[in-house]
Amino acid sequence: MSLNTFGHLFRVTTWGESHGPALGATVDGCPPGIEITEAQLQHWLDMRKPGQNKYTTQRREADAVRILSGVFEGRTTGTPVQLMIENTDQRSKDYSEIAEKFRPGHADITYFQKYGLRDYRGGGRSSARETAARVAAGGLARAALAALVPGIDLRGYMVQMGPRKADRAQFDDAQIAANPFWCPDPQAAEEWAGYLDTLRKSGESVGAVIEVVARGVPAGLGAPVYGKLDTDLAAAMMSINAVKGVEIGDGMATAALTGTENADEITMSKDGPVYSSNHAGGILGGISSGQDIVVRFAVKPTSSIRTPRKTITVHGENTEIVTKGRHDPCVGIRAVPVGEAMMACVLLDHLLLHRGQVGDAGGRIGDTDRP
Amino acid sequence: MSLNTFGHLFRVTTWGESHGPALGATVDGCPPGIEITEAQLQHWLDMRKPGQNKYTTQRREADAVRILSGVFEGRTTGTPVQLMIENTDQRSKDYSEIAEKFRPGHADITYFQKYGLRDYRGGGRSSARETAARVAAGGLARAALAALVPGIDLRGYMVQMGPRKADRAQFDDAQIAANPFWCPDPQAAEEWAGYLDTLRKSGESVGAVIEVVARGVPAGLGAPVYGKLDTDLAAAMMSINAVKGVEIGDGMATAALTGTENADEITMSKDGPVYSSNHAGGILGGISSGQDIVVRFAVKPTSSIRTPRKTITVHGENTEIVTKGRHDPCVGIRAVPVGEAMMACVLLDHLLLHRGQVGDAGGRIGDTDRP
Amino acid sequence: MSLNTFGHLFRVTTWGESHGPALGATVDGCPPGIEITEAQLQHWLDMRKPGQNKYTTQRREADAVRILSGVFEGRTTGTPVQLMIENTDQRSKDYSEIAEKFRPGHADITYFQKYGLRDYRGGGRSSARETAARVAAGGLARAALAALVPGIDLRGYMVQMGPRKADRAQFDDAQIAANPFWCPDPQAAEEWAGYLDTLRKSGESVGAVIEVVARGVPAGLGAPVYGKLDTDLAAAMMSINAVKGVEIGDGMATAALTGTENADEITMSKDGPVYSSNHAGGILGGISSGQDIVVRFAVKPTSSIRTPRKTITVHGENTEIVTKGRHDPCVGIRAVPVGEAMMACVLLDHLLLHRGQVGDAGGRIGDTDRP
Amino acid sequence: MSLNTFGHLFRVTTWGESHGPALGATVDGCPPGIEITEAQLQHWLDMRKPGQNKYTTQRREADAVRILSGVFEGRTTGTPVQLMIENTDQRSKDYSEIAEKFRPGHADITYFQKYGLRDYRGGGRSSARETAARVAAGGLARAALAALVPGIDLRGYMVQMGPRKADRAQFDDAQIAANPFWCPDPQAAEEWAGYLDTLRKSGESVGAVIEVVARGVPAGLGAPVYGKLDTDLAAAMMSINAVKGVEIGDGMATAALTGTENADEITMSKDGPVYSSNHAGGILGGISSGQDIVVRFAVKPTSSIRTPRKTITVHGENTEIVTKGRHDPCVGIRAVPVGEAMMACVLLDHLLLHRGQVGDAGGRIGDTDRP
Repeated sequence: MSLNTFGHLFRVTTWGESHGPALGATVDGCPPGIEITEAQLQHWLDMRKPGQNKYTTQRREADAVRILSGVFEGRTTGTPVQLMIENTDQRSKDYSEIAEKFRPGHADITYFQKYGLRDYRGGGRSSARETAARVAAGGLARAALAALVPGIDLRGYMVQMGPRKADRAQFDDAQIAANPFWCPDPQAAEEWAGYLDTLRKSGESVGAVIEVVARGVPAGLGAPVYGKLDTDLAAAMMSINAVKGVEIGDGMATAALTGTENADEITMSKDGPVYSSNHAGGILGGISSGQDIVVRFAVKPTSSIRTPRKTITVHGENTEIVTKGRHDPCVGIRAVPVGEAMMACVLLDHLLLHRGQVGDAGGRIGDTDRP
Repeated sequence: MSLNTFGHLFRVTTWGESHGPALGATVDGCPPGIEITEAQLQHWLDMRKPGQNKYTTQRREADAVRILSGVFEGRTTGTPVQLMIENTDQRSKDYSEIAEKFRPGHADITYFQKYGLRDYRGGGRSSARETAARVAAGGLARAALAALVPGIDLRGYMVQMGPRKADRAQFDDAQIAANPFWCPDPQAAEEWAGYLDTLRKSGESVGAVIEVVARGVPAGLGAPVYGKLDTDLAAAMMSINAVKGVEIGDGMATAALTGTENADEITMSKDGPVYSSNHAGGILGGISSGQDIVVRFAVKPTSSIRTPRKTITVHGENTEIVTKGRHDPCVGIRAVPVGEAMMACVLLDHLLLHRGQVGDAGGRIGDTDRP
Repeated sequence: MSLNTFGHLFRVTTWGESHGPALGATVDGCPPGIEITEAQLQHWLDMRKPGQNKYTTQRREADAVRILSGVFEGRTTGTPVQLMIENTDQRSKDYSEIAEKFRPGHADITYFQKYGLRDYRGGGRSSARETAARVAAGGLARAALAALVPGIDLRGYMVQMGPRKADRAQFDDAQIAANPFWCPDPQAAEEWAGYLDTLRKSGESVGAVIEVVARGVPAGLGAPVYGKLDTDLAAAMMSINAVKGVEIGDGMATAALTGTENADEITMSKDGPVYSSNHAGGILGGISSGQDIVVRFAVKPTSSIRTPRKTITVHGENTEIVTKGRHDPCVGIRAVPVGEAMMACVLLDHLLLHRGQVGDAGGRIGDTDRP
Repeated sequence: MSLNTFGHLFRVTTWGESHGPALGATVDGCPPGIEITEAQLQHWLDMRKPGQNKYTTQRREADAVRILSGVFEGRTTGTPVQLMIENTDQRSKDYSEIAEKFRPGHADITYFQKYGLRDYRGGGRSSARETAARVAAGGLARAALAALVPGIDLRGYMVQMGPRKADRAQFDDAQIAANPFWCPDPQAAEEWAGYLDTLRKSGESVGAVIEVVARGVPAGLGAPVYGKLDTDLAAAMMSINAVKGVEIGDGMATAALTGTENADEITMSKDGPVYSSNHAGGILGGISSGQDIVVRFAVKPTSSIRTPRKTITVHGENTEIVTKGRHDPCVGIRAVPVGEAMMACVLLDHLLLHRGQVGDAGGRIGDTDRP
């Protein structure tokens, strides 16, 4: 993994700032022959696009993605796919104050400490806008996954907003797209609406927890130690701006379990192994088991808020800051399609890795003729 | 990051199984001129070594590390350092039953599904024994860090065993080495001793949460997106066997915070920026701020337990399994020095990366003469 | 090195085909604070641009490069720099015949064999047009090198066209830019002009040898084995389309030398070591010695010629082919700035790598106070 | 490619110096289920082993390879394979003079300039001894290739010693193993014997050219630009100690050809495409065509000679040096199995890469049912 790239064989490099001419993703290693159109990618970008309702930043970007290379007559050629999104609504003047002051909780100060200079307009690379490029790349990964693993299904949703958790007993996949929060619990969604409205009006922000589930993933993806499927999923999610924690399966809660409680018991069915539970989140020893892959991550609240906070200037003077720009009261909302995109990229990458190292030679349980 | 390697410039590849002739770490990219001896590395390995008290597996390994290359007259030469640990106490017969049966919650089944065969003795690469190689590599990383960043301090400790959390109000660094659990809260340590003894006698296991803190890390290490310092820390910790969740700073709890609560306010002191709190865990936008780096991870309970569990055989038959080998009731104990080692490797790697890309050109706050 | 990327820390990924909307280079890892403008990059692109005289393809491209990211107020920010060149003169109809037939000596057939489909317009990724992206990235590398190593000088020139070698006794750097062949021997240039004119009129093509020299490169860049400076230079040059051989220093001719002849004797001057000769091409054991770095590579003749050649169709039928498009009679001419660009990228990359691993700790000969 | 690693999916990291306790190769990414034994690897090492006749260094090493990991019950498990060779005949005292003096043409001076210190005994990593590790790794790659591509055949041989070229008209594969020079022209071998004997007695050395051919390589391996099969072959060969030039197919000589001469004409046979010639060396646009892969490289003469040469000391004093140790008069002889090993590793790596990205989806010429 290099500084702006992730993936081993399906490699995604994103580039661009929120206030330059454009941003995008350079995708290398995509299998050839995958059918893809700009419209297909646009579908996923539109899910992430800001300004769609009052709960996301009022910055309005068309977020129109263009395919500049690597696709010929509607199919990938196996060469790099360049996905570009032009920036249209930049309003740089909104950001004039933060050229001199560091926002507490924001990358302003560390960029300056590292590089000695920074593009202060809109947060540069740490802007949530960078994630548009991930969603575009993820759209391509989804198309390839669908072609290579028929029936695979990826789904992200919000399970907690601020201190308010959704109720798993009420989860209904059909509800996810029915509210602006991608929440599978309709009652929670309703409560969150009021809660977030109050926060938004006061210029406040709040964190969230997102869960992404992949169903129909074949067993055998991943590797035992540093190339663990969960290692790459953790890195992928933690690489999203504002993410501070990542969990696989039961995650941090596994610490409180005994070995007996944590064991997902196995029985054999005619379709293969069946598990009594999924504490492991579909990954054992870094390798997928065929169960649902379950990943969760926490998104911290945006640091651009209207509450005055103590800070310093680039010149080292003490001061206060209030951020007045157009920002998301709960940036976690827009992180849902981003988490899905990262899951898609990681799964495709590991599918290709597995095919490269092992081909069709993996083990089939109960196949007594195996060598 | 390749399958058994981590790091960009300071690259560690571990190799070996628990029941082969040896295991070790091939370390590439270490700075030249670092003073290192086998005795220095042994110090860290001895912390991790099993069989030291009744709370860890009774397998007794000398875990004696040898430096086979890359060191000349007591100093690194800049070429690959090979660190080898021979396996001495293998008792393969303990593992005969698991050649045919998959332990629930263990990598047995996924290794088979992926590779079509596996070294069933002792878990192969997913054995906790693999972490000895990490601790050796981490010892070298610590020596290099100490030479390059005088005053840097890394410290790991256990903050939760099973459902029992230590009390942060009671934390005392001096207590960490004074109990077998690396627990900074002496009263918690005492309670854990009784709790774990009961579990051990019944052949049960339990999970844990480990925290690792690095003090004195310079500002500016890391990068904005996929090369984020927290991305690499998350990957490093998640790559440890049995880890299911990783947190930076407040971690999953940031989801419940408002932007106002989460903002670590900044004021200027004569020694540089000072922060009112450290929700961020010392990392903003993927780059170190100069505050303490704080990482936490959850270790699940060992799946090798004496409670009978339903499972299947490699031939697809339903059966039960009871694991009778010598195992750790709380493998999290031995994960403490491993977490420290991974932190050391990641920090050194990012120090070299930063020096490579930026040299001494970073920003100094209040330096008005900067270009 | 991944499929469309080269470099370790200064990483260049090129993308795009000759007949898509655009092509470009995604450059990651550039040091921050480097002054760069589109005009500076354009200077190098204009050297490579086709259609400037009768000796290169009459395809006319503006080859105007745009900086889409990573530069703010005229300086690099340390984040990815996206360099895009739009395709303007495509005339796809010229290429209609080759959609069905494979040109002998061309990548047409192998692309089809590998991917099962190809963008047949203009050779896709194997078009010489891909090298425009390298020249743009090389321009950025040159700017960074100039800032970090004052006085460094890179120079490429043609030393052989077809069977006709230039005379080293006549070499004059001032002549290089004075003829359309970048030839330092003015008399050879004159002869080549007539020779190439004849070839061009008959629809024939011819090969060439290019030499690139870097002066003022500090000692210590490179590494002993796979990370050898010459390994990366060889890979960089061999990665250019149509290159079939690479030499460092005396290259293939070293085979004919004795150890006595090959030894570049060393004496000490007040400015450091001085060498009696430079058979080694400035690299010993994979590491720069401070002498001039000398690399040579052979470019084969373009396979797009008017002579009828036997070939087959995608359907497996025997046929003949004559290529009538606008092509270069000696594509080696345009390879000169490309070789320079690759040299610049490799040297900058190794400069950063060295700074990362070693910092300022290298050995100074005669410095008796060294530890 | 990192500093001591090569390969993308089949990754080989070598470690160790000629005078430490051991050296070896850490091989990651090998397909599982490959049958391999130490005896099989030893076969290839014995080909490279010094001290077998008067034409190679009289240093006598058993060069016994041990498999320390990654193989279980005679088959690879898919985890890292550690191949270790212990150093037994070190005689460090032979090298005492060169601790202070730099040998002209040797890496002594550049190691010092880079790292500030070096293991002066026997050249450290730049010793020809490092190549033993490559041969061991190559033996594993050969076994995997044989399993995955039945009928593949790799063959290296010497085509030039000093200024004396073998005669291609006399080439006979059966002769290669029949003389100490791996020369397919028996008469040349006889002449070389006398020539080298004279050089050896006078303490002189000489260069050589090695050619390696792979037959039966499937079409479609490689990638268009930086991941070109020839790029990786060039890097692999150039990474061998003392190599100064690499050629694919006609190599440097392609510069002198016209497009008409260089075109390998294609006709269709019932077994697929047939070519009239193989100027391209089996690679077009970076991708294998199914023809023989042909690579050549030049090995410079050893710099350890008995002729006195001017040099300087580490203290910067002018002096002379005569190297009296046991050295190879033509180190190129031992490079033959090394070249074969590198070819095997690169081909296996690209086979896995191709399988990863494309699977079985490549194009079949004449297959009219393709989509």
